Amino acid sequence: MNLEPVQGFSKLSKTDKIAWLVKHYSKDAAKTQAILEQYHHVDTNLQQLHDEFIENTISNYFLPLGVAPNFLINERLYAIPMAIEESSVVAAASKAAKFWLKRGGFRAEVLDTQKVGQVHFLFEGEIEKLQTFFEANKKMLLDSLAPLTKNMKKRGGGILDMQLVDKTAALPHYFQLHLTFETLDAMGANFINSCLEQLAATWRKLVSEEASFAGQSIEIVMSILSNYVPDCVVRASVSCPVEALGDNAELGKAFAEKFVKAIRIAEVEPYRAVTHNKGIMNGVDAVILATGNDFRAIEAGAHAYAAKDGRYTSLTHAKIEGDQFRYWIEMPLALGTVGGLTKLHPLVKEALVLLQEPSAKELMQIVAVAGLAQNFAAVHSLVTSGIQRGHMKMHLMNMLNQMQATADEKLVIAKFFENKTITHAGVVEAIEKLRLGKLEEIS
Amino acid sequence: MNLEPVQGFSKLSKTDKIAWLVKHYSKDAAKTQAILEQYHHVDTNLQQLHDEFIENTISNYFLPLGVAPNFLINERLYAIPMAIEESSVVAAASKAAKFWLKRGGFRAEVLDTQKVGQVHFLFEGEIEKLQTFFEANKKMLLDSLAPLTKNMKKRGGGILDMQLVDKTAALPHYFQLHLTFETLDAMGANFINSCLEQLAATWRKLVSEEASFAGQSIEIVMSILSNYVPDCVVRASVSCPVEALGDNAELGKAFAEKFVKAIRIAEVEPYRAVTHNKGIMNGVDAVILATGNDFRAIEAGAHAYAAKDGRYTSLTHAKIEGDQFRYWIEMPLALGTVGGLTKLHPLVKEALVLLQEPSAKELMQIVAVAGLAQNFAAVHSLVTSGIQRGHMKMHLMNMLNQMQATADEKLVIAKFFENKTITHAGVVEAIEKLRLGKLEEIS
Repeated sequence: MNLEPVQGFSKLSKTDKIAWLVKHYSKDAAKTQAILEQYHHVDTNLQQLHDEFIENTISNYFLPLGVAPNFLINERLYAIPMAIEESSVVAAASKAAKFWLKRGGFRAEVLDTQKVGQVHFLFEGEIEKLQTFFEANKKMLLDSLAPLTKNMKKRGGGILDMQLVDKTAALPHYFQLHLTFETLDAMGANFINSCLEQLAATWRKLVSEEASFAGQSIEIVMSILSNYVPDCVVRASVSCPVEALGDNAELGKAFAEKFVKAIRIAEVEPYRAVTHNKGIMNGVDAVILATGNDFRAIEAGAHAYAAKDGRYTSLTHAKIEGDQFRYWIEMPLALGTVGGLTKLHPLVKEALVLLQEPSAKELMQIVAVAGLAQNFAAVHSLVTSGIQRGHMKMHLMNMLNQMQATADEKLVIAKFFENKTITHAGVVEAIEKLRLGKLEEIS
Repeated sequence: MNLEPVQGFSKLSKTDKIAWLVKHYSKDAAKTQAILEQYHHVDTNLQQLHDEFIENTISNYFLPLGVAPNFLINERLYAIPMAIEESSVVAAASKAAKFWLKRGGFRAEVLDTQKVGQVHFLFEGEIEKLQTFFEANKKMLLDSLAPLTKNMKKRGGGILDMQLVDKTAALPHYFQLHLTFETLDAMGANFINSCLEQLAATWRKLVSEEASFAGQSIEIVMSILSNYVPDCVVRASVSCPVEALGDNAELGKAFAEKFVKAIRIAEVEPYRAVTHNKGIMNGVDAVILATGNDFRAIEAGAHAYAAKDGRYTSLTHAKIEGDQFRYWIEMPLALGTVGGLTKLHPLVKEALVLLQEPSAKELMQIVAVAGLAQNFAAVHSLVTSGIQRGHMKMHLMNMLNQMQATADEKLVIAKFFENKTITHAGVVEAIEKLRLGKLEEIS
């Protein structure tokens, strides 16, 4: 293979990009090219739309879009679209939805919606003088952003507050302008970053023109929103009588107690908390993706929130209060239902249609419920049958596809494993025996 | 709308699922149905394969699959496939790759590959007695897993160690069997969870049969792997003479100093660190998705690692040492290049082909480099032109698509904004004027 760097790759046509790529990086160029192109949409206009979402697009990565029905949230029934590659996530969500549908459904409320942005700068002069100067010019600084904030303000949002923060204890000469924003139904990244960049320029100019600083100017290091949004938080919960959790009162009580213990363990043990929260994010991210939001932003904010008190801990909590089982999640979710991909990606648009065109606040509630449901299903499995049984059952079709099982073979094998423990080795053996006509040899 | 819960939804055919869904949740059922179906693949066998990845599949969520060429990693040139919806991620990666290609490329090394799993249990008897009993039976417990670990052991992996951990200080009666694993090229989730579940059953049985515990049995709460893998860590780095960073020595030095300041800020300020790491994960997750790994697991592990010392901090670091600029990332990445989706999803398979069929260790290196490159591009923009300029340039096509611009209009508008600041309002105005034949009215 000729492994020379490529020049001007981004300017090549998609066809030429693929041709270059497979020529240099595939041992079977024709095959790789055929598979990449097999995933191109037959409608060239639609394909072009998807190509233009990012740069150097060579194909469409298919992520399954599923749906979990029967979510009763604040007395309203939802079917939640989920884009996710992991088998069992949608099934688990559906199961949890059904479980709680019979027990009063989910409650959800948005606690706060503040977003955050910061101008990070260095200043070597007198701190007190800078603080006085900031306070004297604060209103003017905010007013200078009026052209950028006008539309957002008209709709009821905008800049909520701005503080000068002295961070010199953490790093010499380091200060921030720390701003909070209300961006309503927009995720608001472009709005916040545009405000911050203009603010930074104005602030630097102001200080440089202030004679009393005697040439002590400020250095803007960077201006950018924060994905750490501990005041953009939603809470979702369920509750029911303890005895309603099982087939009878005793079983309900036993389950509730064990469930609470599992949650307590996730609260005190980081090794468990990380995986516990990972399971929550299975549900969260699946809805985030389907609704065109940015899952990296949500992940970063959620895990940092889980670590906010100095030890990484669980995002969900549970307790038994009298005869009531109470179980809830509290997590930051900075979401948008306008802007970004929401109107651009046809499937995102329809996902929002299926969710009844939610506001950002409503979407926060739906997503938090999806996270809580996913956690409920995972912990339910863990404390009862174990995680592997359900997981391997879901994974059976994937294994059979990998072994290129026919439809008939799938039916036989699925039936065969109905009451057996599914392992990879077991499935391999079963399909081999089946193909030799000797499935009955396996007891 | 009739909003009754649905019974037996998962058993409906895909067609019937969609029919039920749009009937109950879309105000324009025909349109929603048409769009969901528009994304079905014309090859019904291939479509069925994708349908069976998860449950209740109704369509294929298209995520753009792009490629970032010119990554020189350990003296080898890669073109890295990335599945991501965020505009500018692939462009930023390509830019960073090219920048470092001219400056010696990236180095990467795997520091360790230990994975973790735990059996969480409660025991109310004497701690010392339990510890003695555990030590006496440790070998036997491990031997009892031989049928499960046999194949992994043959390939050089398996269980590395098992400890009884007393967690009673955190929670009354709480203990763990804490195990470490080497799973080679497999992500290993099924392997680890199967081992743990069987171990838990054996351990419980052993204790219950031990007469000297006098009926003090243990309660298994749950058995599961951990996505917190602080000993499954890879390091990627770049370095070059400070003066080589700019068009001349002075500019190079100024850039290096500002860059290091930006990284220091991310190290000391959690609000910045979260977004800083979010940018890293843009690159990481795009490769994770393209190669069929689980981005929720990677996200959880990475952010928990960023918070491991009690304060959430940056995953990348930079310093100027003499006349050398040094910049690196250290992060946990528990990846697999066999099992899971790797052989099942045709595009994942080809993504691995394009990466030259990497081992899990090689993939760890590639992914860490993608994360470092993404961070470099982001911080580079932030400390020079600001983030908005490049971002809005990338986003221009999305905005134009949203306004249903024709190909001709796109060309004119792109040219018009070549040397102008792009804002959403500005683009709206420009296209309106263009359509009135009055683009020249905008100065």
